[in-house]
Amino acid sequence: MKIVVVGSVAAGTSAAAKARRNTETAQITVYERDHDISYSGCGLPYYVGGEVESIDELTPRDAAWFAKRYGVDVRTGHEVTDVDAEARTVTVRELATGEVFTDTYDELVLATGVSPVVPPVPGTSLGGVFTLRTPSDARTVRDWIESRGVEDAVIVGAGYIGLETAEQLVGRGISVTVVEALDHAMPRMDADMSARVDAELRAHGVHLLTGTRVVGVEPATEDAAGGGGRAGAVVVQDAQGEHRVPAGLVLVAVGVRPNLELARTAGAALGPTGAVAVDRQQRTSVPHVWAVGDVAESFDRITGEPAWVPLGSTANKTGRIAGDAMTGGDLEHRGILGTSIVRVFDLAVAQTGLTEARARAAGHDVVVVHNIKPDRPAYLGGRELLIKAVADRASGRLLGAQAVGPSGVDKRIDVLATAISFGARAEDLFHLDLAYAPTYATTKDPVHYTGMALDNAVRGTAPLISPAELERRRAAGDKVQIVDVRSAKDRARSFVPGSVHVPLAELRRRAHELDPALPTVTYCNKGVSGNAGQNVLRNLGFHAVYNLSGGNTNYQAYVSS
Amino acid sequence: MKIVVVGSVAAGTSAAAKARRNTETAQITVYERDHDISYSGCGLPYYVGGEVESIDELTPRDAAWFAKRYGVDVRTGHEVTDVDAEARTVTVRELATGEVFTDTYDELVLATGVSPVVPPVPGTSLGGVFTLRTPSDARTVRDWIESRGVEDAVIVGAGYIGLETAEQLVGRGISVTVVEALDHAMPRMDADMSARVDAELRAHGVHLLTGTRVVGVEPATEDAAGGGGRAGAVVVQDAQGEHRVPAGLVLVAVGVRPNLELARTAGAALGPTGAVAVDRQQRTSVPHVWAVGDVAESFDRITGEPAWVPLGSTANKTGRIAGDAMTGGDLEHRGILGTSIVRVFDLAVAQTGLTEARARAAGHDVVVVHNIKPDRPAYLGGRELLIKAVADRASGRLLGAQAVGPSGVDKRIDVLATAISFGARAEDLFHLDLAYAPTYATTKDPVHYTGMALDNAVRGTAPLISPAELERRRAAGDKVQIVDVRSAKDRARSFVPGSVHVPLAELRRRAHELDPALPTVTYCNKGVSGNAGQNVLRNLGFHAVYNLSGGNTNYQAYVSS
Repeated sequence: MKIVVVGSVAAGTSAAAKARRNTETAQITVYERDHDISYSGCGLPYYVGGEVESIDELTPRDAAWFAKRYGVDVRTGHEVTDVDAEARTVTVRELATGEVFTDTYDELVLATGVSPVVPPVPGTSLGGVFTLRTPSDARTVRDWIESRGVEDAVIVGAGYIGLETAEQLVGRGISVTVVEALDHAMPRMDADMSARVDAELRAHGVHLLTGTRVVGVEPATEDAAGGGGRAGAVVVQDAQGEHRVPAGLVLVAVGVRPNLELARTAGAALGPTGAVAVDRQQRTSVPHVWAVGDVAESFDRITGEPAWVPLGSTANKTGRIAGDAMTGGDLEHRGILGTSIVRVFDLAVAQTGLTEARARAAGHDVVVVHNIKPDRPAYLGGRELLIKAVADRASGRLLGAQAVGPSGVDKRIDVLATAISFGARAEDLFHLDLAYAPTYATTKDPVHYTGMALDNAVRGTAPLISPAELERRRAAGDKVQIVDVRSAKDRARSFVPGSVHVPLAELRRRAHELDPALPTVTYCNKGVSGNAGQNVLRNLGFHAVYNLSGGNTNYQAYVSS
Repeated sequence: MKIVVVGSVAAGTSAAAKARRNTETAQITVYERDHDISYSGCGLPYYVGGEVESIDELTPRDAAWFAKRYGVDVRTGHEVTDVDAEARTVTVRELATGEVFTDTYDELVLATGVSPVVPPVPGTSLGGVFTLRTPSDARTVRDWIESRGVEDAVIVGAGYIGLETAEQLVGRGISVTVVEALDHAMPRMDADMSARVDAELRAHGVHLLTGTRVVGVEPATEDAAGGGGRAGAVVVQDAQGEHRVPAGLVLVAVGVRPNLELARTAGAALGPTGAVAVDRQQRTSVPHVWAVGDVAESFDRITGEPAWVPLGSTANKTGRIAGDAMTGGDLEHRGILGTSIVRVFDLAVAQTGLTEARARAAGHDVVVVHNIKPDRPAYLGGRELLIKAVADRASGRLLGAQAVGPSGVDKRIDVLATAISFGARAEDLFHLDLAYAPTYATTKDPVHYTGMALDNAVRGTAPLISPAELERRRAAGDKVQIVDVRSAKDRARSFVPGSVHVPLAELRRRAHELDPALPTVTYCNKGVSGNAGQNVLRNLGFHAVYNLSGGNTNYQAYVSS
């Protein structure tokens, strides 16, 4: 058997390695257009920023290592330019010599990955305008920064790479502007969560321009005189009009698109997401042609619908699955939750499964909770994290979660992702036997609290209302009685407009001041006392009592977002 | 309805709070013998060590707070001395006044907790001999240390409290000896894992005496002249005989036993573990008497067998379950995995589910893997953690996991505990969509690697052999061919005795030097290259090839343990 793999980053090398683990007799060749193989694309921003000293740390394996370890022939600097799926041949060009030759295959793996999208605006070919996808990109950007003494940078796009690089450039003392066309950073998240990311960026001095498009890049004035040259400013457009933002460096990080040329040449069908359609073992529509990694379409583990979220974790999985399947294995992809995490200065920002917006769009009647809890006791340095969780009201099934906080976020998202993978319902979370010691967690973990609140809301014993829903109802003219159960001190800082103030300790005896027939919303700072007040009123016979999800903290974040 | 709760730490207060959340009409009284309520027992070592400054941080809630918040009457300094389950009354003594009165109940909750076990040896009533269970214990111990200038301490028992306190006392500059009757610290873990804890303790200057019993405590010499007085030395006995260890402070932390007096008085049956038998809603055998927290028996979520592992996390759960059930709720306990974690200097040490030893004892044909991987990439400061996982060979079901390492251990144990709760099989772990960014994890997470290795071992495509099993086979006279596939440099440092050296890169062409008919064990440093070598030999037709679980690293730890 002869296996040819095109592309050698995460998915291609995973496929080759897994195939070799399964069989010694296959001949395995990997063609790679570039120089580097099996590198950590997600580590590149940290090389740009200098947190990673040497680029070699991100490219620990070379072709020789791979050949020695796996008996796999990795040919870098070789571009596959054509596929003849009938004849089972590929046309290969050795870039250094220009030599073109034909190779045969029994199984062909397309791991051609993605390329950064560059908006079609003037000036993107100026010096100092970069994308960041490969180690050589990263070397170029860092060299540019260090040799030019860059003082101002504009990052176009507030997704993972954009925000990671923003953090790193700030760390280098560069004044950073992030331009995002949508309303918030991290547009894959719900707005009420990504608003926290916006705030974190601004708190660290990043100039975040949301709802703003890039319309062009202009050369530096001194170069302009000579024509062409390097970037000097980015022209952006928002509701107020056009502005110029000085930029000695422009990083375009608005997204990626799959490299489909070879798949098209081979005749492989694309899926509705625009990536290459594959079955659960990564076979394309063309016999003996497989697609793995970012070029391949995936599917949502919850909805079963086609999905495309290019992530290194998924690329590794799908490569291994294809490598196994083509050598007789029975691994099958089980779909993705789009679980992801990014560090943005002091915050970890993570998500898994469906957001509230996506769950609604998929037709779910959703229950949403915002839970704010310390990751471990304050007496051992615990700090608060916010978990937003979404469940389906009818089934109680957990659909997704998002979390932000300075520590412990990765743990909770991974626990929730694991629970979702097994079809967990909200009620299941409380029963998880998680590891408690005050050095690592609270006795009831934030995951437990999230599950308890979500389950109570699903069952209707403690319904929640989100700030957005409350304001929607009030805007629609519904009469809602809002009760602030906090202390006078807390209320003095900020409160929900239109709320009455009845501290929790007085609520039992002052309940007669309220109208039990009106829809009532209780709230405190974060939700716990609000829930206590809600229970008091419900148990006293109040008709419909909602606890404000995430309390005043979440409300104020919502109204300021 | 009138609810009486006896005991107000974790479980008692949870029961009262949950009952109140469900109903405003119940009258709820909590009797507490001691002064402090709802405190963090697990935080006490950190107060002793000074990492927690003030004891108030561990006792954030008092009776007044509870009354205000929940309308629950908490009477501290009140001891319940008798129960009449027929009449549904309790006899209560107010400790300050000596006044005795009778109270009635509709539902009685026993949350009487545990007491430290003190071995029946001479001298334990000397000054300076302590247990550590309550805030007042902690205050006493810290006062003793600070007022006496303690230089030497002996800790009896190498479980959680013992090791946490050892760490804290070392941090105070005290010379610490830990005496453990069994062969290793952390006796609930498998020996090959607890050996790592032993090493960590010794690396931080703790004198760890395993296989050693305490036979008495002797008074300080200057006091002895005057008779009685304070502790001066601990007399210990090991295989070599008796020794004296100087000790200005002795902490007895050999374990706890349930406080059963009231349960016995009420006539409640005990379970096979010796704790109070309860149903899945925490009812005892006596109508209207419930038991929650450490005094109650639990059951193993995997085996369904009665189990008793007193932990704060479980106490909170069972309290909440009883409080819900007695007010009409339907919460039911789902059992425990005994998930726990402890910080021991720079190591996190955690476990969930069955150990290898317990799985074997329960009759499982087990598959065991030791996986050593960095918690995140080395280029962003990742450090290695070791996960040992145990699965049932026939079903592939994950039975348990143990992990040690400087960081990321809590996350992996919680993910594995979650997976086990949902009945995960080894093959399921690879498919988990966990959050990857190099700041938090590796592209394939240690959980994925553990699952892949375990699944390969379960399927028999890559069988593993533990160091213990290898040595057992060799000791039994089996002929085993052991192949070291590492570099000459690695081999020069240490190797498995009797192994031949064939580096992985040479293995394909030198395989003819080996005997394909012999049972063969391949190994590298940690297991990955050993697995690669194993695959090479298996694919070349070798008969039975095992990869040494955890490689030479694990082997050397085993033989030195």
